[in-house]
Amino acid sequence: MLNNHSTDYAAVVAARERISAWTRTTPLVECEELNERLGGRLLVKLEPLQRSGSFKIRGALSALTALKPAERERGVVAYSSGNHGIAIATAARILGCPSVVVMPADAPKTKQHRTQAIGAEVVLYDRTTDDRETICRQIAESRGLTIVAPFDDPMVIAGQGTIALEIAEQAAQVGADLNALAVPCSGGGLAAGCTIALSKLSPQTRIVTAEPFEFDDMARSLEQGRHVMNKEATGSICDALLVRTPGKMTLPILRGAAATGVSVSDEEALAAMRMAMETFKIAVEPGGAVALAAAITGKVQVAGRVVAVICSGGNADPAMFRRALAGE
Amino acid sequence: MLNNHSTDYAAVVAARERISAWTRTTPLVECEELNERLGGRLLVKLEPLQRSGSFKIRGALSALTALKPAERERGVVAYSSGNHGIAIATAARILGCPSVVVMPADAPKTKQHRTQAIGAEVVLYDRTTDDRETICRQIAESRGLTIVAPFDDPMVIAGQGTIALEIAEQAAQVGADLNALAVPCSGGGLAAGCTIALSKLSPQTRIVTAEPFEFDDMARSLEQGRHVMNKEATGSICDALLVRTPGKMTLPILRGAAATGVSVSDEEALAAMRMAMETFKIAVEPGGAVALAAAITGKVQVAGRVVAVICSGGNADPAMFRRALAGE
Repeated sequence: MLNNHSTDYAAVVAARERISAWTRTTPLVECEELNERLGGRLLVKLEPLQRSGSFKIRGALSALTALKPAERERGVVAYSSGNHGIAIATAARILGCPSVVVMPADAPKTKQHRTQAIGAEVVLYDRTTDDRETICRQIAESRGLTIVAPFDDPMVIAGQGTIALEIAEQAAQVGADLNALAVPCSGGGLAAGCTIALSKLSPQTRIVTAEPFEFDDMARSLEQGRHVMNKEATGSICDALLVRTPGKMTLPILRGAAATGVSVSDEEALAAMRMAMETFKIAVEPGGAVALAAAITGKVQVAGRVVAVICSGGNADPAMFRRALAGE
Repeated sequence: MLNNHSTDYAAVVAARERISAWTRTTPLVECEELNERLGGRLLVKLEPLQRSGSFKIRGALSALTALKPAERERGVVAYSSGNHGIAIATAARILGCPSVVVMPADAPKTKQHRTQAIGAEVVLYDRTTDDRETICRQIAESRGLTIVAPFDDPMVIAGQGTIALEIAEQAAQVGADLNALAVPCSGGGLAAGCTIALSKLSPQTRIVTAEPFEFDDMARSLEQGRHVMNKEATGSICDALLVRTPGKMTLPILRGAAATGVSVSDEEALAAMRMAMETFKIAVEPGGAVALAAAITGKVQVAGRVVAVICSGGNADPAMFRRALAGE
């Protein structure tokens, strides 16, 4: 069940208290030669190194640790294009509770297999014809499970916000006063959590969402001040970022902070993946690389500024990494 | 000039004091599913995330910060199969001194170009016909530069040992009492530094060197108790590990701790690179992956034990990563 409690800075701090025993503080790094080339300072958060391979474990652990013990014992169900599912499976395993993950049939096989290997039951659906929320609700009702939504859940948003607590602390340690933080965006849970955390810790930092071309529902929704839908449900290699419209909870949070959005092509995402591998030695999946892509293409201006970007996950098939490495 | 001062635990601690403002504490991670598969506990040190892309910056900064100011001003010269050169160039840039790097002409282009881009002068030589030490000595004498040897230098060994200080602390934080530490090995600087650090901090931890098949001069030298040469100078994809015989200083240090050595094939190194990318989201070069390869193939026994391995560097050409990802 979605719950309607609002999320605030205290909830982000409380989430960190609950989850930090199981999550990693991932590095925030920069490269002097890259900074020179960009004419500014670019700090990169290496979240593929997070447990479960993406930031999603933060929200999943936050949500599951906030459940009542009896709810946790019965178990949880989640719908996910991949990383949220892996994260829910991992969090459920850590906390010893059953989990079911409803996944699109065209999600990377890596993500399907890993979700099962971790111990979750996987139910597949067709992204173009089935409604994942309906499938999820039916499973929840028939088995007495709690739904953990991927972004429209205050505890999930609070959990994702913990990454911005780290970024603010790590940036301060290297004397970086952030003008902007660019964040890969699908439903907006990560961006909303970061917005809440930074509005308190670093109110001068502008939040910028990064999305794939044609799937920039958040950018257009922020511009038009209302929920706008993407036309298509598939068609970008950024499989983690194909949600068709921003969350009910996340859009207002981002609008309240006057966030803006940019979008990048698949080729730009692939070039950013390649650069992440060469410069930072890190494997980033296509959707996880869009904020870095926005920074290196100048869509988020680094020149003369101090900008942080989140590389949000690294769960792609080997063939996708080969493709990124092939572009010279 | 090689200097003859011996290196001890205090020198490693002093090296950390001198270099830690510029180096990163890289993560030591493990994966629950992998541990289950191996039947033990495997902790992996992600040193490709180190500044300059490998552990070599530790030794380079240690050596350069130990020079007299006048020596530093004149500059340094180093011979290197790649990572030591990148590290010397980076350290020299950080400290504002000139640097010359003598590199084999068949080293990965990535490493040559990066060394130049960082600001060093690069001099190429033929690995099969030229003597790099002679070339290096001539440049040093004619220009008044100080030679920084890649492993037979007490300050370099002390610098490399700082990685083991981190490993010991990080292992303690996760309650891991290490039975063994496996380390990629060429001349033996990293292995010797780790030996010195752990003989004090964790004397029960056995040091194991990992090398490529046919280039296991350290393993054979440890076994026979004398310096043994590799037959060939080239022929493995592990370009960082092709030194023909252990260092004069490093072998006695390793023998004193009863270290042993194992070796792996190029295919095993490639499989480890692929696993590092899939499981830990990290780009490891072939030579940097040999200790991980030794652990996952059981050459270093993980079953029933607690083992740490160092993934020591990530500076390979994209084509090499594509090759690793292509093996299914």
